[in-house]
Amino acid sequence: MEMNIALLPGDGIGPEVVAQAVKVVDAIGKKFGHQISYKEGMVGACAIDAVGDPYPDATHEICAAADAVLFGAIGHPKFDNDPKAKVRPEQGLLRMRQKLGLFANVRPTFTFPSLVHKSPLKLDRVDGADFVFFRELTGGVYFGEPRGRNEQGTKAFDTNVYTKEEIVRLARMGFEAAQGRRKLLTCVDKANVMATSRLWRETVQELAPEYPDVKVEYEFVDAVAMRLIQWPKAYDVLITENLFGDILTDEASVISGSMGLMPSASLGSKVKLFEPIHGSYPQAAGKDIANPLGTVLSAAMMFDYAFGLKAEAQAITDVVNLSLAEGYVTEDIAEGGTAYKTSQVGDWLAAKILG
Amino acid sequence: MEMNIALLPGDGIGPEVVAQAVKVVDAIGKKFGHQISYKEGMVGACAIDAVGDPYPDATHEICAAADAVLFGAIGHPKFDNDPKAKVRPEQGLLRMRQKLGLFANVRPTFTFPSLVHKSPLKLDRVDGADFVFFRELTGGVYFGEPRGRNEQGTKAFDTNVYTKEEIVRLARMGFEAAQGRRKLLTCVDKANVMATSRLWRETVQELAPEYPDVKVEYEFVDAVAMRLIQWPKAYDVLITENLFGDILTDEASVISGSMGLMPSASLGSKVKLFEPIHGSYPQAAGKDIANPLGTVLSAAMMFDYAFGLKAEAQAITDVVNLSLAEGYVTEDIAEGGTAYKTSQVGDWLAAKILG
Ligand SMILES: CC(C)[C@H](C(=O)O)[C@@H](O)C(=O)O
Ligand SMILES: CC(C)[C@H](C(=O)O)[C@@H](O)C(=O)O
Repeated sequence: MEMNIALLPGDGIGPEVVAQAVKVVDAIGKKFGHQISYKEGMVGACAIDAVGDPYPDATHEICAAADAVLFGAIGHPKFDNDPKAKVRPEQGLLRMRQKLGLFANVRPTFTFPSLVHKSPLKLDRVDGADFVFFRELTGGVYFGEPRGRNEQGTKAFDTNVYTKEEIVRLARMGFEAAQGRRKLLTCVDKANVMATSRLWRETVQELAPEYPDVKVEYEFVDAVAMRLIQWPKAYDVLITENLFGDILTDEASVISGSMGLMPSASLGSKVKLFEPIHGSYPQAAGKDIANPLGTVLSAAMMFDYAFGLKAEAQAITDVVNLSLAEGYVTEDIAEGGTAYKTSQVGDWLAAKILG
Repeated sequence: MEMNIALLPGDGIGPEVVAQAVKVVDAIGKKFGHQISYKEGMVGACAIDAVGDPYPDATHEICAAADAVLFGAIGHPKFDNDPKAKVRPEQGLLRMRQKLGLFANVRPTFTFPSLVHKSPLKLDRVDGADFVFFRELTGGVYFGEPRGRNEQGTKAFDTNVYTKEEIVRLARMGFEAAQGRRKLLTCVDKANVMATSRLWRETVQELAPEYPDVKVEYEFVDAVAMRLIQWPKAYDVLITENLFGDILTDEASVISGSMGLMPSASLGSKVKLFEPIHGSYPQAAGKDIANPLGTVLSAAMMFDYAFGLKAEAQAITDVVNLSLAEGYVTEDIAEGGTAYKTSQVGDWLAAKILG
């Protein structure tokens, strides 16, 4: 197969971890006989520094023309405490999601037997947890208008908006995912307070009869924030709006004890994007110590979701598991064993795929 | 002192737990020589059933004329899955908060040595955690206008609004609380996305120089959702808007392992309200098994926050600790020991205060 992949390394450790995923993708290409070509684009703080725009048109063109986007991370603390900054790296991310129509963010949480002891949760609570969030990504308070301030600047407002259509397309993805899993769908909302949430709940209730094999539960966002910690194993597929998804997927990400390994996919109408869920960790940037496995597993998701190539995806998952089993890993999960460099782990994974 | 207390037992287990708090308050009154009188009002699902209004005017008048309100819990599942229900119990709660001007919800999280092992978190992560949220309670998306649907019903919207004034009065409470504690204030927002959050951050930054002894940190709501689980001991006082506070205080409530014991206060311009953070647990209603300690500790907060009577508050905290030490507790925390009834625990606490 011919594959046109856009690479957006981004900020901080982004370039280093994306470089390892490229090694792995190349190895898969070689082994399975795919023609893989890359085009690289700038995004985030580095793009602001270079051209004054966190998501330049040139980058958008590369992404829009690609079959899939492999993304690192963005963000730099110098922008965080300046509420008046005109351009922020995050705007690039938001504009990218919107312009590429990436309306569904898929965030699996699962545990690795060799890492689950690092979870802040007790072993019996979390061991074996396996659920996936479908977070709506191009609607809600992130993009709703009007937003801003009154003239005197003494009052600020944001608008949360959802159309039925936006809810339907996200919810259908959730229902379908549930059908291929344990057949439980949890709709997370705040229907006791918010009008948007009531439309979410109503819409999901209307769709449910089309998926008679899926059990649907409705839970308030505050209750889910509790139960994710108490009984994470109770969940299978969760669907929710943009802001709730932002908060809950991050909460979920730490319970596995292996946040540095968690991949994600953002799906839309045409192009699909894949990225690790961890941030840009500026403190670690350039040190060749960042854990590349989240990005490598995102590349596995890419083969599966973007190209429908399950064997290729599995081959990546297999070498990642091998690296964990053999302790060929970076310092964050080395557990007193030898700590390998980011680049060494990438080389090792690629070699094992080809070996 | 003369004290005029409004009692709002509410739904589910509310009446049972409030009844125990009344026994304790009466005992304190006797011991410390206070004249305490009560007036009872209806609120929640039971008020809908009785008079079609979850917060009847008669109840509001009782509350507005009282020195303090002691509140149980509201909510009934029969309302939860009906997105089209015209009247919902929660509306009573929201109207009450707004009409009484209860703009600050104070939610402490702390651990009890004898119960912390029940936390879903590992002991070393959570043992000794001690922080308090100040959640804004009468603004934000809970009350912002416009909210609703378009004519065809295919689009829904909510508005999040904050004025500088609303942020200032809440933030000042947080700063002052921090001065009396470990002097760390965390402002929780989503300033990288929301206009309201940028006003929050800006306003807190402006106030900070007035409290030079308080260290102020700014964190995004998604980061706090993670760090609350990873490093709960890192926090002291957290301030945040209504919706973020709803989600995060519930998340925080389960990490202590003793949610049934956590009290809360809602403060405003005049009258103050006190309630346990747990819900109405309809399954347990009428069985005399509910844990009354959250309500009893809320009564302790009442003596402190509403009447400035610290010795009385401490006397209640002391008997609660005694009941835990001696195992005179309800079945949820009996740990294989004798499980006492809700009413027995109330009697025991009152007797110990007077004994
Ligand atoms: C950086 C920020 C705008 C972004 C979001 O809130 O969506 C991030 O937290 C995420 O979850 O990808
Ligand atoms: C019942 C509901 C409206 C309420 C809220 O969201 O404020 C509750 O969750 C709470 O936190 O007191």
